[in-house]
Amino acid sequence: MKSHTKYLTLNIPSKMAFRNITPEVDAAVRASGVQEGLVLVNTMHITSAVFINDDERGLHHDFGKWLEELAPFNPDPNHYHHNRTGEDNADAHLKRQIMGREVVVAITKGTLDFGPWEQIFYGEFDGSRNKRVLIKVIGH
Amino acid sequence: MKSHTKYLTLNIPSKMAFRNITPEVDAAVRASGVQEGLVLVNTMHITSAVFINDDERGLHHDFGKWLEELAPFNPDPNHYHHNRTGEDNADAHLKRQIMGREVVVAITKGTLDFGPWEQIFYGEFDGSRNKRVLIKVIGH
Amino acid sequence: MKSHTKYLTLNIPSKMAFRNITPEVDAAVRASGVQEGLVLVNTMHITSAVFINDDERGLHHDFGKWLEELAPFNPDPNHYHHNRTGEDNADAHLKRQIMGREVVVAITKGTLDFGPWEQIFYGEFDGSRNKRVLIKVIGH
Repeated sequence: MKSHTKYLTLNIPSKMAFRNITPEVDAAVRASGVQEGLVLVNTMHITSAVFINDDERGLHHDFGKWLEELAPFNPDPNHYHHNRTGEDNADAHLKRQIMGREVVVAITKGTLDFGPWEQIFYGEFDGSRNKRVLIKVIGH
Repeated sequence: MKSHTKYLTLNIPSKMAFRNITPEVDAAVRASGVQEGLVLVNTMHITSAVFINDDERGLHHDFGKWLEELAPFNPDPNHYHHNRTGEDNADAHLKRQIMGREVVVAITKGTLDFGPWEQIFYGEFDGSRNKRVLIKVIGH
Repeated sequence: MKSHTKYLTLNIPSKMAFRNITPEVDAAVRASGVQEGLVLVNTMHITSAVFINDDERGLHHDFGKWLEELAPFNPDPNHYHHNRTGEDNADAHLKRQIMGREVVVAITKGTLDFGPWEQIFYGEFDGSRNKRVLIKVIGH
């Protein structure tokens, strides 16, 4: 059995954005030497997400608009009690629940076992600061 | 350490539907010979989902109605920019984020370690075409 | 390769609440002896969730209010067909889809490989009864 751990650091220069991190995950899988196994990819923060969907600019626009409708930004501490802590990012904690903290992807014959359009994204909902993503590979 | 990989192909003859794939996952776990480990089950497409919930017809009706409220079908490219690509399935990409791409289930004593009502479903949101589901078993 | 299985039993004395189960997961990881691997933590029930977010009282208030808006409690069997079974918990099945059934966490150097604010929660949406959580550790 083999394992391999890699940390990415990202700094997204806006409140909300989506970045394709598939190349970094692919590189970690190759570096691990694992032929058959699983790779976990998760954000290490609670106001961001890791998810799999399409690398299409229009869709990312739609995600942003939709998430803002489902969980709108509102700094008012009477609207979100979390903002009584002095923060204004309660909406980011909610948006991340929709999009998800992590993905687990199969490794087959040494590569990410993906369908034709699957790509891994980091989703930022409270950016302009350093955030980390964890890549953990296990297998044989 | 052992691993086992199985691909299912499904063709759901409607835009949205839910199909119980627990028997296929159970068969793959038994074929793997793994006694203790994990099984990953994921859709390989970005307009469908794999999730665990109850096998109850009324609930599936409720899922469909609820998802349509949260992420309505709308082919208008002014509503969803993704539909400017010529597709009309932006809503399916959103619905899948609510329901989830994948599940990871424990294998204990050679079988799916489930609570009394847990069943694995494939959720289709843009059907009438072949789609694949990946089952990856690892363990010992 | 090593594996370890632990079941928790919880009885939340209200319909909806969030309980931090990080100490129990941490104890299971230490008991497993796994230095590098993965731990799966999932609810074994379909009206509750396991998720990772912040241990902050105001945020949990916000989660409850937000989930009630997205998937309101409504015992009327004309609103939720699932409630035609004689149950009144259709909303709990929907709320759980937003929050998620499970988390998978990396184990590095024998401990949960977490960012600064990550904590694991059990989310109950149909409480006042015994429910079980499964912790499965695999690694080496």
